[in-house]
Amino acid sequence: MTSPLAERVKVIGFDVFGTVVDWHTSISREIEAIAPEVDGGAFALAWRAGYWPAFARVRRGETGWVKLDALHRIILDELLPRFGLQRLDEAAREHLNRAWHRLDPWPDAVAGLTRLKRRYVICPLSNGNIGLLTNMAKRAGLPWDLILSAEVFRHYKPDPEAYLGLPGVFDLQPGEAMLVATHQKDLAGAQACGLATAFVERPLEMGPGAAKDDARDPRFDMHATDFLDLADQLGC
Amino acid sequence: MTSPLAERVKVIGFDVFGTVVDWHTSISREIEAIAPEVDGGAFALAWRAGYWPAFARVRRGETGWVKLDALHRIILDELLPRFGLQRLDEAAREHLNRAWHRLDPWPDAVAGLTRLKRRYVICPLSNGNIGLLTNMAKRAGLPWDLILSAEVFRHYKPDPEAYLGLPGVFDLQPGEAMLVATHQKDLAGAQACGLATAFVERPLEMGPGAAKDDARDPRFDMHATDFLDLADQLGC
Repeated sequence: MTSPLAERVKVIGFDVFGTVVDWHTSISREIEAIAPEVDGGAFALAWRAGYWPAFARVRRGETGWVKLDALHRIILDELLPRFGLQRLDEAAREHLNRAWHRLDPWPDAVAGLTRLKRRYVICPLSNGNIGLLTNMAKRAGLPWDLILSAEVFRHYKPDPEAYLGLPGVFDLQPGEAMLVATHQKDLAGAQACGLATAFVERPLEMGPGAAKDDARDPRFDMHATDFLDLADQLGC
Repeated sequence: MTSPLAERVKVIGFDVFGTVVDWHTSISREIEAIAPEVDGGAFALAWRAGYWPAFARVRRGETGWVKLDALHRIILDELLPRFGLQRLDEAAREHLNRAWHRLDPWPDAVAGLTRLKRRYVICPLSNGNIGLLTNMAKRAGLPWDLILSAEVFRHYKPDPEAYLGLPGVFDLQPGEAMLVATHQKDLAGAQACGLATAFVERPLEMGPGAAKDDARDPRFDMHATDFLDLADQLGC
């Protein structure tokens, strides 16, 4: 037995950072590998905290289109002196910046996506740029059918153009596409555009012991503990 | 032993229609299945012949962006009366138009791409739209790392923006990307932008007995008899 929602949806887009991959652990580890004296978790949180203000500047039209790799680098250069790491040279900064291409998936991600792919078209719907998402997928074995990115639509989430691009490229109605994310704000943006929505719990996203609101929220169409539970609920 | 070219190239884009998939046989078969009285091969050639004039109108800026599915449909509606098929209703026309999503790959394509994928990032670089290329890949088992399309860059080949988009999304130099195609004109466009080029023979592209120029052309960096030969030459 599959639900009307499972029948109606044809393509599933996934938020990536935090939802598919564990950025906190991967970034912490890369920082501590080159600077053991630094609190890697605090550095990861600070880097990530620069993310939304950077998008906001692009979304307000202040900069033209800037891909996430370049935004990450701007934030990184501002951050290094605060952590006593201004000594890092250009090559080290570029290598570190591409740590976002080398994030590890959550343990259930590859197996869950592989099951979901049998029945649905699956893709990232991420603010990450195309090259970042492709390199990440190739390294981690994420079995995407295609790479969709804010870069394709030249609009960062939560701009409606980014959400509506998912059904748009397949000539579907908004309700035939679904966004999966561990962030309420992202899902609310998709829902306002008419997409179906699934919340997935990622209690460790912000690091061990840090607060993360994973409570069931009746606004969203589905709530799953991980991608295997999502696949179960969708009959995959 | 691998060549300097094999070492330098990081991503390989593929022309799709004719190079990866056999449009002539697949379209002929679909036409003859619904209209046995029609010469399917002649219909396929006529449909395909509308392709470049349609791109030219978009490239001259006469229409704004129009995706290939919509161009195929305009050409189809013009073509049906010429073949006595004006009786086809809307549903039949839409189904037939999506025959381009259901093209079969050449026999060597999946095996060759699978080998090339071990070492390179591989993707279509096609005038087909994103949805068409995704549906085709999912049906045929084409193991792309990502889907690149004229739709991503809003420019049809041979506009330079389409060719330069391939290295661009990966922040590579043009010579670190290669186009594979069975069409000299397409490769010449890529070469003019600085991309590496590989010609692949597809003697049956235009149908059995039809002329197809597959001669070795010294302008291009590589010449291969099929994708397995290409993988051999690249040491994959």
